[in-house]
Amino acid sequence: MDKLTVVKIGGQVIDNASDLKQFLSSFRALPGRKILVHGGGKKATELSKKLGIEPRMINGRRITDGNTLEVVTMVYGGLVNKNIVAQLQAIGENAIGLSGADGNLIPATKRVHPTIDFGFVGDFEVANINTVLLRSLLVQNITPVCCALTHDGLGNMLNTNADTLAAGLAQSLADQFDTELVYCFEKNGVLTDINDESSLLSELSFTTYQELKGNGKIADGMIPKLDNAFQTHEKGVGVTIKNALQLNETIGTQLI
Amino acid sequence: MDKLTVVKIGGQVIDNASDLKQFLSSFRALPGRKILVHGGGKKATELSKKLGIEPRMINGRRITDGNTLEVVTMVYGGLVNKNIVAQLQAIGENAIGLSGADGNLIPATKRVHPTIDFGFVGDFEVANINTVLLRSLLVQNITPVCCALTHDGLGNMLNTNADTLAAGLAQSLADQFDTELVYCFEKNGVLTDINDESSLLSELSFTTYQELKGNGKIADGMIPKLDNAFQTHEKGVGVTIKNALQLNETIGTQLI
Repeated sequence: MDKLTVVKIGGQVIDNASDLKQFLSSFRALPGRKILVHGGGKKATELSKKLGIEPRMINGRRITDGNTLEVVTMVYGGLVNKNIVAQLQAIGENAIGLSGADGNLIPATKRVHPTIDFGFVGDFEVANINTVLLRSLLVQNITPVCCALTHDGLGNMLNTNADTLAAGLAQSLADQFDTELVYCFEKNGVLTDINDESSLLSELSFTTYQELKGNGKIADGMIPKLDNAFQTHEKGVGVTIKNALQLNETIGTQLI
Repeated sequence: MDKLTVVKIGGQVIDNASDLKQFLSSFRALPGRKILVHGGGKKATELSKKLGIEPRMINGRRITDGNTLEVVTMVYGGLVNKNIVAQLQAIGENAIGLSGADGNLIPATKRVHPTIDFGFVGDFEVANINTVLLRSLLVQNITPVCCALTHDGLGNMLNTNADTLAAGLAQSLADQFDTELVYCFEKNGVLTDINDESSLLSELSFTTYQELKGNGKIADGMIPKLDNAFQTHEKGVGVTIKNALQLNETIGTQLI
């Protein structure tokens, strides 16, 4: 099977032009087929503020009202996505920007929650991902650059967590490609002390993860990220968590 | 040869939700393969104003400084493009949104002008359009929805006239498909009196166009539109100019 790497980048590398350039250059250097998944980082929050839309978060998830949906559609689907695609084209990587609506890539449903109205937030089933489209692009040496937007099939875009989306894409293609998922962010990997890079775990098992979660050494945003990561690892996908600026280096946390 | 219709919609139909819905439904009903090209209409101007960016126009063309480029990338490539794609998906049309950077669809160069600095405005050669990508999508029954953005191959998006872009796409595919170009806007076609819909010309030859331009009966924005239209007609493409809300009716101006 062909090798496929699904790489997810977080906000901080997107917000810094020279970091982004360095990251994209190392992404380009990855061997085999690849898919890039991105959110929008601070730009969506900044634009919301400029437009007088107060950002609201519950449990680390953005509440997406109609105005916020417009902002994230503009920032994730437009500004960030097209700039990444244009920059990849400039270094010879034939990228194509996709939201979950494009080619019906990721049909989703608006989240229903008993107490919280998340607004235009979408959840999807891995089985519904359009792997025919992805495969068709990948075999033409076209690299999908996916923003964290899905659609409800009723004409509405939906905001979707980028970690979950990357995990879903990797899982959906695991039977067709020798697939690896890489979560990139500003730390060197999973740390047992968030303020100490030397506390990096080079390997992490599910058992150890449960212990570290239990004693509070892994917390906050790392929990949904690692839940996605372990769920993907279970499907036979190699998963690594590493620094966006060390994509081609061996430093990082490998799930075992 | 398969039939292909390239339809360009202008701002006014995009700005009105129920008109857009009606238009997309008639677009869906067109027989054969199709491509939709759109600009962004008033939304880009509105967002610029909200962000304190003063829109500047010279000869009907928007001057695209760095801030304006961000706005049009967000509005054309993000908000408008993704909303059209999501709405087409909702009525069973498998659409995919594309800028000129996506899949290297339309490589362009930043416009150089002896006296006016147009900013990030792109001009392209029809011969450089990536028809391999377009054909690959069309034969998979995927309908490209193209926003009026190109890229310079150096990492920058460029703002490009949507009429010119639609004409270029139609010309580039004319040898592979039985191609037709339809310019849709808020009038019923080419009028000899802009305030009188009964002055509609059902047919227009190049000779008559030159006469009407000479005596000022065709003026302003219609001139670049018709220049693009006749240039495309010369390449063996059927060209019609009609009302966006009468896409499936025979009312309109046919170039002869």
